[in-house]
Amino acid sequence: MADEARFGRLRAAMERERLDALVCRLPEHVLMLTGYQPLCAWVYAVFPLEGRGVCILPDTEEQEARAELFGTECQTYPFGTKDSPAQEESVLRLLKAAGRGWKRVGWEARSETSAPAWNTAELQIPSELSRALLETAFGARRLVDASGLLRAEQVVKTPPEIEGVRTANRIATLGIEEFFRRAAPGASGVELVAAVEASVMAQGTGREGARRVRAFAQVAVGEESARGWRPVQVTTTRRLARGEIALLELAVVADGFWCDRTRARAAGEPTAAQREAHALVASAQAAAIAAVRPGVTGAEVDEAARRLIREAGRDRQFMHITGHGLGYRYHEYAPMLAPGSPDVLRVGMIHSVEPGVYDPAFGGIRIEDDVLVTVAGAEVLGPVSAELAG
Amino acid sequence: MADEARFGRLRAAMERERLDALVCRLPEHVLMLTGYQPLCAWVYAVFPLEGRGVCILPDTEEQEARAELFGTECQTYPFGTKDSPAQEESVLRLLKAAGRGWKRVGWEARSETSAPAWNTAELQIPSELSRALLETAFGARRLVDASGLLRAEQVVKTPPEIEGVRTANRIATLGIEEFFRRAAPGASGVELVAAVEASVMAQGTGREGARRVRAFAQVAVGEESARGWRPVQVTTTRRLARGEIALLELAVVADGFWCDRTRARAAGEPTAAQREAHALVASAQAAAIAAVRPGVTGAEVDEAARRLIREAGRDRQFMHITGHGLGYRYHEYAPMLAPGSPDVLRVGMIHSVEPGVYDPAFGGIRIEDDVLVTVAGAEVLGPVSAELAG
Repeated sequence: MADEARFGRLRAAMERERLDALVCRLPEHVLMLTGYQPLCAWVYAVFPLEGRGVCILPDTEEQEARAELFGTECQTYPFGTKDSPAQEESVLRLLKAAGRGWKRVGWEARSETSAPAWNTAELQIPSELSRALLETAFGARRLVDASGLLRAEQVVKTPPEIEGVRTANRIATLGIEEFFRRAAPGASGVELVAAVEASVMAQGTGREGARRVRAFAQVAVGEESARGWRPVQVTTTRRLARGEIALLELAVVADGFWCDRTRARAAGEPTAAQREAHALVASAQAAAIAAVRPGVTGAEVDEAARRLIREAGRDRQFMHITGHGLGYRYHEYAPMLAPGSPDVLRVGMIHSVEPGVYDPAFGGIRIEDDVLVTVAGAEVLGPVSAELAG
Repeated sequence: MADEARFGRLRAAMERERLDALVCRLPEHVLMLTGYQPLCAWVYAVFPLEGRGVCILPDTEEQEARAELFGTECQTYPFGTKDSPAQEESVLRLLKAAGRGWKRVGWEARSETSAPAWNTAELQIPSELSRALLETAFGARRLVDASGLLRAEQVVKTPPEIEGVRTANRIATLGIEEFFRRAAPGASGVELVAAVEASVMAQGTGREGARRVRAFAQVAVGEESARGWRPVQVTTTRRLARGEIALLELAVVADGFWCDRTRARAAGEPTAAQREAHALVASAQAAAIAAVRPGVTGAEVDEAARRLIREAGRDRQFMHITGHGLGYRYHEYAPMLAPGSPDVLRVGMIHSVEPGVYDPAFGGIRIEDDVLVTVAGAEVLGPVSAELAG
């Protein structure tokens, strides 16, 4: 089953930029061009303007690729055993065979971010060696940077892509529910992360047809988030004391599609101040979600949340943006829901809505969900409780 | 505390290649040049031939960096909030300030692999945009590829680096013991992976001073490994039946240093054929470890294991190499323990020893440990049982 909407849009964009083909190696681009999330990043997607695409990959992942590639030819090369020939030669031969005298070949010259391949323990990176390989295969003067095209095309999702992100969000609810069960006095941050990630892996794999599922959780305990938001919160062995708040940041990837969720939970009975801050954040999130509809700007949605927090006198405690695109990656750059953002929401975009306040007295409270922009407004993906206490 | 041995060796190598400085962004190189494993890969390490190094990083990870950088100056730039200025400008200004009229600046032009930063859910990659940034900071003609130097310098570890890999291996034993406890009839592959990763995270963090610990496990169940070895084994929901073997592949990273371990475990009582294959692999591993000493080649160590497997008539069931370097990464390229490998073992190298046989009847049995090459031979890091049954 090919994603005809995706392929049609890509070809229209390629025609506008007069590209004869796209040749990509970053895992999120391979997924977009072929429907297959690579196990490692030695996989090349060749997507021609005319004719059938080719996915070039190590023979050690042929089994998964053949089951998952949609409408793309599968070409393998020997890999990883003691007798495998030099990888570069195999890849070069297959790239040359896939080429058809193209004059302009788009690649990822200026892509500085990517989702990882399925195996996140080790990275394969397109360096100048890879550029040289593409130059040999297609001609140095024929290579064109397509990073902008690729990024722009990711912003609006097609129905199968939306289903992928919806699945990731539904599976993430398993981790959120586990977090709610475990966030009690005495639990440490690393114990909570371990339990959340384990529940997503063990219960989420196979759910709704997802073949490969992994969670990446971070938990800040009490004062650890009091100084504000951090893009990477290092989880520690600090234990929750009664009356403290645990803040869970949770990414889940299911067959290459990502979600980004956050919940705050009190260990025991929350204080009045904690309840007030939590209610404020919940109302700010609800206001932002209610503001989502096609045609509004990211700035407007941001302001819908920020206004409430400002009116409550907590403006300086909300130092981050209200949301960002996502799906092919944990964080995409568009749409950006931030002060001054001119990004206009369109049907099929998926973005987070994640206001928060970081109170020096008791730490951060953030509520984050992912929403799909629909003709009617916003659909919250994988809805689940956001209560501060159970 | 600076790693004087590391810094001295790097400077000697830089003098040989007439480099005035190294400027690196790949996480494993930042770790080698500064002692700090970055949380994300927007961190630059500037390591001059003369004078003190500088680490340039987002202010959102200043806390960890200041606690961990050894002998390197910490320079931060505003990052990630709604008011942060453009990252490129901040980084460029700090790179220029760190520079001192250098004529030859080594960087990672041709590095195609790296360990991930601490946050493995999202990648930041040095693309041609990063190259352009370095060109603006230091001059296009002054940039020199230092990938070969960096890789060569990683091969022999210094005492603090050895301690890092030893710690990762000791922590990995927690996951192996959990695997042994759980590998029983009815357990699924994803349940085993979830339990192993959770135990390493929850019990390993803080162990032996390790601040950031994560495990990446893969489990093949029974026939899933019967067709042979795969560099990435996708773990499934398939459940262990009585008499089947579960094969655990386990990477653990502790503060940026990696280990690579494997154990096989029977669910219930193993058959005679399984016991025979397991004993063969164990004896092949023991023979290879006994062959390890300074001055021998990778080919000789490989042959010590392979000869026993060949003599048992299972040569074709052992299709991979006997071992590889590791430590800064899950897999390093040297030393390579493979047929024909000319790599000569030296004191301070760390490599895996991982013979295996993949029997069409019952699947794969592999035993993998990491060893340090010492003057006396090999020290097995993080020793733990390799029994097939409990």
